[in-house]
Amino acid sequence: MTLLVTTFLDRARDHAPDREIVDYVDGTCVRRSTYREYDARVRRLAGALRELGVRPGDRVATLAGNHHRHLELYLAVPLAGAVLHTVNLRLEPDEIAYVVGHADDELLFLDVALRPAAAPARAARPGMRVVVLDGDPEPGEMRYEDLVAGGDPVHDPPPRGEDDLAALCYTTGTTGAPKGVGYTHRALCLHTMAAGLADGHAISRRDRVVHLVAMFHANAWGVPFAALMVGADQILPGPSPRVADVATIIERERATYLGMVPTLAVDLVAHARRTGADLRSLRALVLGGSTPSRELIRAIEEDLGVSAFQGWGMTETSPMATFSRPEPDAAPAKRYAQIQTQGRLLPGLQWRLVDEDGATVPHDGVARGELLLRGPWVATGYYRGERPEAFVDGWLRTGDVATIDPEGRLRVVDRTKDLIKSGGEWISSLALEAALLEAPGVADVAVVAVPHERWQERPVAVVVPDAGGVDPDAVLAALEGRVPRWWRPDRVEVVDALPRTSVGKVDKRRLRDTVGGTHNAAEADASRVPATPS
Amino acid sequence: MTLLVTTFLDRARDHAPDREIVDYVDGTCVRRSTYREYDARVRRLAGALRELGVRPGDRVATLAGNHHRHLELYLAVPLAGAVLHTVNLRLEPDEIAYVVGHADDELLFLDVALRPAAAPARAARPGMRVVVLDGDPEPGEMRYEDLVAGGDPVHDPPPRGEDDLAALCYTTGTTGAPKGVGYTHRALCLHTMAAGLADGHAISRRDRVVHLVAMFHANAWGVPFAALMVGADQILPGPSPRVADVATIIERERATYLGMVPTLAVDLVAHARRTGADLRSLRALVLGGSTPSRELIRAIEEDLGVSAFQGWGMTETSPMATFSRPEPDAAPAKRYAQIQTQGRLLPGLQWRLVDEDGATVPHDGVARGELLLRGPWVATGYYRGERPEAFVDGWLRTGDVATIDPEGRLRVVDRTKDLIKSGGEWISSLALEAALLEAPGVADVAVVAVPHERWQERPVAVVVPDAGGVDPDAVLAALEGRVPRWWRPDRVEVVDALPRTSVGKVDKRRLRDTVGGTHNAAEADASRVPATPS
Repeated sequence: MTLLVTTFLDRARDHAPDREIVDYVDGTCVRRSTYREYDARVRRLAGALRELGVRPGDRVATLAGNHHRHLELYLAVPLAGAVLHTVNLRLEPDEIAYVVGHADDELLFLDVALRPAAAPARAARPGMRVVVLDGDPEPGEMRYEDLVAGGDPVHDPPPRGEDDLAALCYTTGTTGAPKGVGYTHRALCLHTMAAGLADGHAISRRDRVVHLVAMFHANAWGVPFAALMVGADQILPGPSPRVADVATIIERERATYLGMVPTLAVDLVAHARRTGADLRSLRALVLGGSTPSRELIRAIEEDLGVSAFQGWGMTETSPMATFSRPEPDAAPAKRYAQIQTQGRLLPGLQWRLVDEDGATVPHDGVARGELLLRGPWVATGYYRGERPEAFVDGWLRTGDVATIDPEGRLRVVDRTKDLIKSGGEWISSLALEAALLEAPGVADVAVVAVPHERWQERPVAVVVPDAGGVDPDAVLAALEGRVPRWWRPDRVEVVDALPRTSVGKVDKRRLRDTVGGTHNAAEADASRVPATPS
Repeated sequence: MTLLVTTFLDRARDHAPDREIVDYVDGTCVRRSTYREYDARVRRLAGALRELGVRPGDRVATLAGNHHRHLELYLAVPLAGAVLHTVNLRLEPDEIAYVVGHADDELLFLDVALRPAAAPARAARPGMRVVVLDGDPEPGEMRYEDLVAGGDPVHDPPPRGEDDLAALCYTTGTTGAPKGVGYTHRALCLHTMAAGLADGHAISRRDRVVHLVAMFHANAWGVPFAALMVGADQILPGPSPRVADVATIIERERATYLGMVPTLAVDLVAHARRTGADLRSLRALVLGGSTPSRELIRAIEEDLGVSAFQGWGMTETSPMATFSRPEPDAAPAKRYAQIQTQGRLLPGLQWRLVDEDGATVPHDGVARGELLLRGPWVATGYYRGERPEAFVDGWLRTGDVATIDPEGRLRVVDRTKDLIKSGGEWISSLALEAALLEAPGVADVAVVAVPHERWQERPVAVVVPDAGGVDPDAVLAALEGRVPRWWRPDRVEVVDALPRTSVGKVDKRRLRDTVGGTHNAAEADASRVPATPS
């Protein structure tokens, strides 16, 4: 039988008709619905897409937040045989125009608040029709609810093969233009099975998942598909929920599963400490996007009474690739250390570590190499064949430098491009950042390489102080004995916030441009390194 | 990437090299090994198979108990590109000859104790080479350990497609000759993913599984493949373990997962009650093969302190198809009732209930229909195309009559051929058996139809008394108000044991032949219905 994501819709309707889809806005519940209703709306919407002339294989874009209509498009677009292109709403408007043009999107579904972001894309593609998801359409636009109301329900979707694309995301790589990653029906189905594995995220019918991860970001980690397949409840927090809203949602909805970036988790822990919010309905708080600190893991487990895990992956891996589940009998310190690794490779995938010559590096927990990945839900090429050098013999070159210990636990120690080559030796910016995070007064930190005449490259640390302020000399002194002496940054710059990419990662390219070579700590100020709202 | 079961071997070696394979014989541990050693032995064995001339697609038979060598063949045969045909060692010797001939097996791996059972098959196929798994080879036979010692390790298996067969089992249908069910690499891979789902058997790296289910029986429910994929420990209890041996294994090995038929579970509960055996290391005792009684479920959960589940499926479904996981917050009585259903359909599969005309029957928990199944690990035909009428439009006709409630829980109420048509109305022999099991003095029961001049068919009950003995009149009286009056069996026959098929199911065909029409309760005695050792 063909593996098709559209079968998840049948399954939700037939096996979990009364399970819930719940929408929140600003911490207030604004809608409760069921998979029975979801199914009916999705089928009518798919019918409307067909009537609009969307043909199998066409790309349909979304520029939208986390709400039920976006979730409806997740299935309606594939049900019409088309490809769901979820556009990153944090891209610059001209980048949005680029990806929409590159994908050759036929139709755009748009939150009205995002009209300005979409303007250049629309100007460049006058033939692209636009549907507004909320609010009133302007001339030439269509209203989403009119499509849902008027569509002829699709019960026999156009035949699709499992190697046909169902979805498309663009990576927000820090090198060059965004690159498209196409997800086949087969990749998404197998990824969804993996999402339900007891050894992985273990998403099950007992769950009530909260989609805090943006729905444009690698299909919100694929959790919406997993929830549909297993019949879990789904809770959508609406646009830009504050941490207090997230806590409210967890408490009111008795949520069980939440994925988020460590930065937000720090805020959530602080909020819960301050307010006494009870988050213990969560069976899993899964951290992803960057490595969480040991202290954050401890705080989630001990202060919140919630099990912490780490999920790791990338847009090119659908995205779930590893999961850091600790041994059940590990003592707390060991447990936190295990969670802090990127964890074990999900069944179904294969990995290799290779050195610069492509030779295999041992899995001894010490040797470092670039991580290569392969498997049914790992990309083997970018959309329209771009950047073929990122793939070799069917393997994805992740660009991550990692170790794998004999127990099979992955530690990502750097991005290949974030390694600092100083005097012929490599300095790990991630390891240096981890050591700097332990220094007094440091709330956040990034290390970048600056060119150096003698040593080729030297590290510079950019730190965000905590409430008590930071002393750069004390920061450097705190590194004594923790990292090799020659790793010690040449400078410590103090800023109010680190620049971030559209998906919340520290934008080292911008940092490098800013600190590059000419500044010193005294000159640095926050205005040079503006924060991007994330 | 192609889905191949042979990747499970790579995964066990690379991700769980130190996890264990443990052999027991008669409750005594006789061998401990690791996946590292397993991998090396399997690769050498596969090399030996190649050197013996086994070509991709060839069938290789096993007639063997549950031990590490059988587990090695599970992977070595596919690694040689061939098809593992696990022969049911409880078949009659002439039936074994039939299936070995039908499969056209090139090679037979044999426990020496089973030489007599294999004799007719060998006589009929003088060209089939034979390897003895234990003991000394007779002239013309080879020794297993010689192959393992001498084989050239296979690291590059012959290319196989995911639709190529990796394994083959014959059903022991009660109608006609055994029929072959071929398992493709793809089917086994997807079935294995399903075995790891948190909503299913949830087999994970944390598990230490015991293979009490025969390894010839639908690949021991597919659990060996699942354990390899996730890196769980595997414990093999050897030939014909007694219930005391099983309890010893669980206690000594801190086993976590055990699948078994309800009949054995009854004995295990009784044994634990008698001896105080502590079986609480089990996270799951999964019952399969027939519907467990409410009392058995209660006893497992309350007396043993172990979570009970029910798995349901058939050889044609690889075999896992449904799993009865109760709602987490259900009160005990409701919990036991939920476990007693056959449970929910595993993600990836589809089902329908149809009436005699093939029309869909509602999932209202009341309407009955024949269960049809479809999915990536459901057979779409028998080996060599036999009995095509068991399949319709890609759906497997299970031959089971069932209801599905609005919550998606399956209840198998009968086999189509076990329904009793009396006066134009259907009597469910399974429902009648369930009611009879609650009657005083009844330890076990089977209901069969006997021809009747006026009513066409009428039910006859065959009961096994408990230690206190049984009074047929009291049994009939106990049915009052529990089943429709016209369901009341015409006779109650008392026997020492029920005849069983080679896989432990009540052999209704033999029962019908025995009780058919001419006997009455006074005539019945145990000698008429001899028990088959199972």
